[in-house]
Amino acid sequence: MLKNKDKLVRSYVASILFDRRLWRYDIEGSIAHTRMLAKEGIIADSDAAAIVEGLNAIREEIEGGQFQFKTELEDIHMNIEARLFEKAGNVAGKLHTGRSRNDQIALDMRLFLKDEIRKTAGRVNDLQRSLVELAEKTRTVIMPGYTHLQQAQPILLAHHLLAYFDMFQRDAGRFHDCFKRTDVLPLGSGALAGVAYPIDREFVAQQLGFSRVSTNSLDAVSDRDFVIEYEAASAIAMMHLSRLAEELVLWSSSEFGFIEIGPSFTTGSSIMPQKRNPDVAELARGKTGRVYGNLLGMMVSMKSLPLAYNRDMQEDKESLFDTVDTLNSSLEIFAAMLKTVKVNAERMRDDIKKDYLLATDMADYLAKKGVPFREAHGVVSKISEYALSRGKGFGELSLEEYHRFSASFQEDVFSLGLEASLAARDTAGGTSPRQIEMALRRAREKLSSSLMEEE
Amino acid sequence: MLKNKDKLVRSYVASILFDRRLWRYDIEGSIAHTRMLAKEGIIADSDAAAIVEGLNAIREEIEGGQFQFKTELEDIHMNIEARLFEKAGNVAGKLHTGRSRNDQIALDMRLFLKDEIRKTAGRVNDLQRSLVELAEKTRTVIMPGYTHLQQAQPILLAHHLLAYFDMFQRDAGRFHDCFKRTDVLPLGSGALAGVAYPIDREFVAQQLGFSRVSTNSLDAVSDRDFVIEYEAASAIAMMHLSRLAEELVLWSSSEFGFIEIGPSFTTGSSIMPQKRNPDVAELARGKTGRVYGNLLGMMVSMKSLPLAYNRDMQEDKESLFDTVDTLNSSLEIFAAMLKTVKVNAERMRDDIKKDYLLATDMADYLAKKGVPFREAHGVVSKISEYALSRGKGFGELSLEEYHRFSASFQEDVFSLGLEASLAARDTAGGTSPRQIEMALRRAREKLSSSLMEEE
Amino acid sequence: MLKNKDKLVRSYVASILFDRRLWRYDIEGSIAHTRMLAKEGIIADSDAAAIVEGLNAIREEIEGGQFQFKTELEDIHMNIEARLFEKAGNVAGKLHTGRSRNDQIALDMRLFLKDEIRKTAGRVNDLQRSLVELAEKTRTVIMPGYTHLQQAQPILLAHHLLAYFDMFQRDAGRFHDCFKRTDVLPLGSGALAGVAYPIDREFVAQQLGFSRVSTNSLDAVSDRDFVIEYEAASAIAMMHLSRLAEELVLWSSSEFGFIEIGPSFTTGSSIMPQKRNPDVAELARGKTGRVYGNLLGMMVSMKSLPLAYNRDMQEDKESLFDTVDTLNSSLEIFAAMLKTVKVNAERMRDDIKKDYLLATDMADYLAKKGVPFREAHGVVSKISEYALSRGKGFGELSLEEYHRFSASFQEDVFSLGLEASLAARDTAGGTSPRQIEMALRRAREKLSSSLMEEE
Amino acid sequence: MLKNKDKLVRSYVASILFDRRLWRYDIEGSIAHTRMLAKEGIIADSDAAAIVEGLNAIREEIEGGQFQFKTELEDIHMNIEARLFEKAGNVAGKLHTGRSRNDQIALDMRLFLKDEIRKTAGRVNDLQRSLVELAEKTRTVIMPGYTHLQQAQPILLAHHLLAYFDMFQRDAGRFHDCFKRTDVLPLGSGALAGVAYPIDREFVAQQLGFSRVSTNSLDAVSDRDFVIEYEAASAIAMMHLSRLAEELVLWSSSEFGFIEIGPSFTTGSSIMPQKRNPDVAELARGKTGRVYGNLLGMMVSMKSLPLAYNRDMQEDKESLFDTVDTLNSSLEIFAAMLKTVKVNAERMRDDIKKDYLLATDMADYLAKKGVPFREAHGVVSKISEYALSRGKGFGELSLEEYHRFSASFQEDVFSLGLEASLAARDTAGGTSPRQIEMALRRAREKLSSSLMEEE
Repeated sequence: MLKNKDKLVRSYVASILFDRRLWRYDIEGSIAHTRMLAKEGIIADSDAAAIVEGLNAIREEIEGGQFQFKTELEDIHMNIEARLFEKAGNVAGKLHTGRSRNDQIALDMRLFLKDEIRKTAGRVNDLQRSLVELAEKTRTVIMPGYTHLQQAQPILLAHHLLAYFDMFQRDAGRFHDCFKRTDVLPLGSGALAGVAYPIDREFVAQQLGFSRVSTNSLDAVSDRDFVIEYEAASAIAMMHLSRLAEELVLWSSSEFGFIEIGPSFTTGSSIMPQKRNPDVAELARGKTGRVYGNLLGMMVSMKSLPLAYNRDMQEDKESLFDTVDTLNSSLEIFAAMLKTVKVNAERMRDDIKKDYLLATDMADYLAKKGVPFREAHGVVSKISEYALSRGKGFGELSLEEYHRFSASFQEDVFSLGLEASLAARDTAGGTSPRQIEMALRRAREKLSSSLMEEE
Repeated sequence: MLKNKDKLVRSYVASILFDRRLWRYDIEGSIAHTRMLAKEGIIADSDAAAIVEGLNAIREEIEGGQFQFKTELEDIHMNIEARLFEKAGNVAGKLHTGRSRNDQIALDMRLFLKDEIRKTAGRVNDLQRSLVELAEKTRTVIMPGYTHLQQAQPILLAHHLLAYFDMFQRDAGRFHDCFKRTDVLPLGSGALAGVAYPIDREFVAQQLGFSRVSTNSLDAVSDRDFVIEYEAASAIAMMHLSRLAEELVLWSSSEFGFIEIGPSFTTGSSIMPQKRNPDVAELARGKTGRVYGNLLGMMVSMKSLPLAYNRDMQEDKESLFDTVDTLNSSLEIFAAMLKTVKVNAERMRDDIKKDYLLATDMADYLAKKGVPFREAHGVVSKISEYALSRGKGFGELSLEEYHRFSASFQEDVFSLGLEASLAARDTAGGTSPRQIEMALRRAREKLSSSLMEEE
Repeated sequence: MLKNKDKLVRSYVASILFDRRLWRYDIEGSIAHTRMLAKEGIIADSDAAAIVEGLNAIREEIEGGQFQFKTELEDIHMNIEARLFEKAGNVAGKLHTGRSRNDQIALDMRLFLKDEIRKTAGRVNDLQRSLVELAEKTRTVIMPGYTHLQQAQPILLAHHLLAYFDMFQRDAGRFHDCFKRTDVLPLGSGALAGVAYPIDREFVAQQLGFSRVSTNSLDAVSDRDFVIEYEAASAIAMMHLSRLAEELVLWSSSEFGFIEIGPSFTTGSSIMPQKRNPDVAELARGKTGRVYGNLLGMMVSMKSLPLAYNRDMQEDKESLFDTVDTLNSSLEIFAAMLKTVKVNAERMRDDIKKDYLLATDMADYLAKKGVPFREAHGVVSKISEYALSRGKGFGELSLEEYHRFSASFQEDVFSLGLEASLAARDTAGGTSPRQIEMALRRAREKLSSSLMEEE
Repeated sequence: MLKNKDKLVRSYVASILFDRRLWRYDIEGSIAHTRMLAKEGIIADSDAAAIVEGLNAIREEIEGGQFQFKTELEDIHMNIEARLFEKAGNVAGKLHTGRSRNDQIALDMRLFLKDEIRKTAGRVNDLQRSLVELAEKTRTVIMPGYTHLQQAQPILLAHHLLAYFDMFQRDAGRFHDCFKRTDVLPLGSGALAGVAYPIDREFVAQQLGFSRVSTNSLDAVSDRDFVIEYEAASAIAMMHLSRLAEELVLWSSSEFGFIEIGPSFTTGSSIMPQKRNPDVAELARGKTGRVYGNLLGMMVSMKSLPLAYNRDMQEDKESLFDTVDTLNSSLEIFAAMLKTVKVNAERMRDDIKKDYLLATDMADYLAKKGVPFREAHGVVSKISEYALSRGKGFGELSLEEYHRFSASFQEDVFSLGLEASLAARDTAGGTSPRQIEMALRRAREKLSSSLMEEE
């Protein structure tokens, strides 16, 4: 604890400007601790009642905006404790029995993060719902599928959107797994070595909704894995958002012209009304950097720290808060933005200029007629060059011309087409309309069974 | 595919120098794919047999070191396929039916990583075993516990070592969760849109030991989450190793003098035999940077990539291989090194120079006599200053002197001591000998139930 | 520009909460721009006068704390412009002639950073001064020099401190070089393509103190190299601080006991007065992660952005501000903290327990007597082992004993000692007292010629 | 040094697999050191001659591919020294006089990097030349200029290309500045404390082409700033390449269709000849991640290391080598690739579909007629909406229609057009043909005065 520090030092080490955000968890944790102390007879019931009453009163003050946070009291714990002395008198001094700021802050952070993970999971779910809704609305829309940003094969837009559904589903899984490891009560670890009172940690865990108690006090006060793991899962989720954002930006360009994002999610030069700057998508894409940076920052701060608590660890807060806020707001705004996306179905389909995207289908056609695949591949390659050099599409070649390349071609080669191409990709995970209908159904089912409710 | 490229381009884009490492998985995947094609009647049984025979022969060539990898064939797939043509003739062309290099490389990477995660899990387990063994051997050794690298409270060395056990246990959990998401078959996704043959993906999954098949072809070929997630879990594990390494370095210094690492894990200036440079620990600490860097690199490479496959994704290999090798070798060498650590028990205990580390115990003592904790705290604070200024330890003060600060002191204040302090911290996770015995027993149990065997 | 956005979007894209910090530069730039417009006859002198008067009035409002920043006006430019309309009426509309928000924000950022680099350079200088002062105060103090945290050779503490002086000198050089590349006027680039008025960019540059004007408008509005370069230089500077911090933490431990940091820069458990937690040093060490993270975040945000301006670039502000504040406050607090460091000279010297640190000197002794160095090395190696196994120091061996290992030893071997060892390292950069005196003199000279004054 | 290590440890700590790359510098440094020792009379001239002869012979062996590098000799220094003993006998033992592996490796790294920076500077220059050549070839080509990937104003393609010229010019400056700080001789610092022989460091510096000698031995062996600074400059350069790569990828898409990259720099699906996958550009974009990762890795490895040498620092080599190779090959391949780019000038110009890109010009037009800029802005905004809603371009409106919005329009409004718009942006840095001609001339001048020749 600081005493008589000069202003320079105080403002350098004080955390109250940001850790005040934890006030609700700090009070909640203190109340549970107090009740346990009384239950175990470590403090008198009347003392406990006075402390709990004081803490509840402080909670109301903060909620009401009347609480004065003071930098000279350094952090959220001291701010609340100091006020408790004012409210409850010397009995406040008993609150700290069998507790240290080291296990207290670890508790606050875990309570906070558990709440935020639940929020994140909900936001992921909302975004997935928006993806499914858009896919359902546009279920028949055909678009070029890309590799290397070069048109490769026709796909359904819904298939493309559901690819993101699957990405975010994995994100949900990672947040769920992170939750498990966050859901561990550190209180009762003392400063580092455990507590010299007959405390009941399981009781506290139950009161605060933790599934387990930590099993090593040194580790419990030195551990910020849960922060890093959340930040890593968030970085991957932001990576997914950055990919979606990139595509929204591309598709909004006049060159692609695939979609129009609703006006409330774009900004325009007022002077150039044709301009629909996809600022929200761009900003989310840019914020990926920040979330990566927070992750790396925390990993750097924790590197090579000897046990147990070191002050370096105070850096966990701003880092985590910023990631939580960035991720949650980005997820939320994407869920809302996708609802406003208008798809230009005609443009998407017409953008598949020539039917060369059917080359793979034609090779498959030959292979099904018995031509070894690599040979079929070679035949089609030659046909493509032939057609390309004459500026013709496949459908514009005659059967005679086809026969110059392989005798296996028959009249049914002309039944190759976008719809047939799609329909043919009808195995699990493929882009056929039948697969997509099933995928949409599965997606709806997943949406209705929220992961986090199990907790 | 490259053709007629100049040397500059070829060496820039070729991956065979590193992806050759995947050869076993590439062959394994091709065999499973071939068997499925035959089972479904997509290719003839005899063709399948010829292909499988050829692939098996290639496997033997590679194992025997007779296979010639060629840069002009660019990657592992083309190297093996070209050789298959030499061995099996044109039938080799049928192997590629219903498959693309995009889903093939995704398959190879997942097969590879599944094996490596099992290896990582085993190494984590070995390291945990070394920690437990050292803790068991030194179970009565008392050392100063630190916060801020300042002596704070006495603890058992075994307690300190078990803190690392708990860290690595979380790592094991993360690798286990990562395994779940890696254990998904991407084959059957084609280039991006799925496959136009009646393939049986479940059969292939079963043959290759996958629990599930991917549900969206676009995602399956664009997804490298499993690489990033492994790298993130590895980064956290290396962070834990860096902390352990830091402590080994500190404890090996002549100033601490707590331990001696075995000579095969240190290097000395030959001229200064007293020097025992803990090179292995330092190097592992340094390699943390590399593992962090690989994680960042992959996240950057994947950021903002539109669907589906882009060549940027080729960067996943060297990054993952380097992380796998760094982590696995570091875990292995730490497991071995810990077995050689000699603990200087006397020095550890004597290093607790004065009994001021018992201050918290004394405050607890007063609190148990009814003094409110914060007040007790203040009393002890004054006694400490008093003793410090006179150069005396607590045990050297008289009861009279104690009474100057509080009337609550009684004769039993003199029973405070290191052993009593340890014994008092006897709640879950605390450093008391009883808790540590239980913790050691639990650790042994966990060690014997390997996580990965469940897969 | 946003209009009619809902709250979610507004708070996501608005930057006024952080870019308000640029207000002074925004006004300064607008005034210079206005004066140029009038000088060139693009707007009337009277209009210019009205605009400048309005801007000056706004400056006073902000300085006086009476200005109301509004989120719905999104950014600092619009906030000031809107107020200017209120103050100066429609003439305010002429301020934007030949200017865009894209070149305006680039200007604000560069003006801001130029000021901050000057500040950083000053703080680096202050810290170097503290190092020199401490070195001067302790110029005769001998300490063990370390490699691998193992004692290796005796050195002067002043030599150790001056190593940091040299590190920070390189930092100063990097900030100086970064300043050169920041000191370029972007205004006059318009939105992206340049400006369609006969503006005088050199005049504006001169007014605002820029040495050069940018030479490509597309680049000028797309470039954030100066932010990244500053952040990279800062990351290296923080890395240096983290090394110094680590040593302060080590040296403050009871095991080393080399120094005592002044009480206003440490925090203690009030109950354990012997504890002097070096919180400030730890926190600075931890904040290294944040500065690294900011750098990486910006590099990630800028990766793969097509020209010209993209909204992703808005992420530059919080990142830069945080780095600037973290670095400058850390430098400042270290400069102040070092003034309070008390060196325990006796402990430092006595910590060199045995004279084995003189092994290199003994090898040099033999080499000077004509023994090839590698052979000399081998001889000393054997003597060391011999002495170590008998628990003797070199000085406690007899000449007879020496002769068992080499006939080249003479009586003068006993003149080897710490002081002699130091004195012998008397070439440029060595630790001899003579070299250190010269180094201190050189350091003083460098301190008095501030780099940034040249600008 | 290792002795009798088991294989696990040896392969973990050995660096010979990668530091062998430094062999030329190691020999070069040893020769200079030997000559200095002889000149100062520290060793005999005949001994020096024998050593130099031996080293030269080893150089020839390595050049001829006959040298056997051995892992058990751990690093490049020991490999060469051991061979020198074989070649020159015991006199080899004198080479190490007044030198340590700590200052030796620092020397090798600096010699290596100086060479590589020169190479990098040359490659940057080549790439800039390619940009200028392409700009010169296409000097009249008009394209849409973008902000937010939305068409904003017409620009010259040459202007766009020259924006990259300016970026790489800054990179050149950063490498130049990094060179200055690399160009410092560390040899003569010994293990950490300096050298106890009357060595002549200036002589060695001169022989090896260093401008300065280091001034603090502790710093000289602990410093890897030059590695990090090079990696940071490289990260920024790769960021620039990633932006150029992104645009090449975009422009190669069928939707943009602006350019065609030569076939030797693209790969196609052989089956889809229309596909021109810009693999080289994608791969370079992806490799940005790796270069960022290397930077982070080194900064992490160096964080919090106490002085002086620690084994963590060995991690500098692979990191630097990989960055050097990635950057230099990427620069080289881009310089070559740009020469093959065919520009589709017609498509670029026609892509500016409607003349709304002239909106800013129209506002400027009004402003020049005396309408305050913000008001003019409002007028044009209304006209744009009016035209857009009727599907007309500006040129298709009548003067009457214009007058509905402002009486200030006159007949000359119809002279607004792409060429006029370009010509109007004729101030420094603007996109007017005149400015671009001057910019091209300046660029040519810069190209002919290579930065690095000054060294």
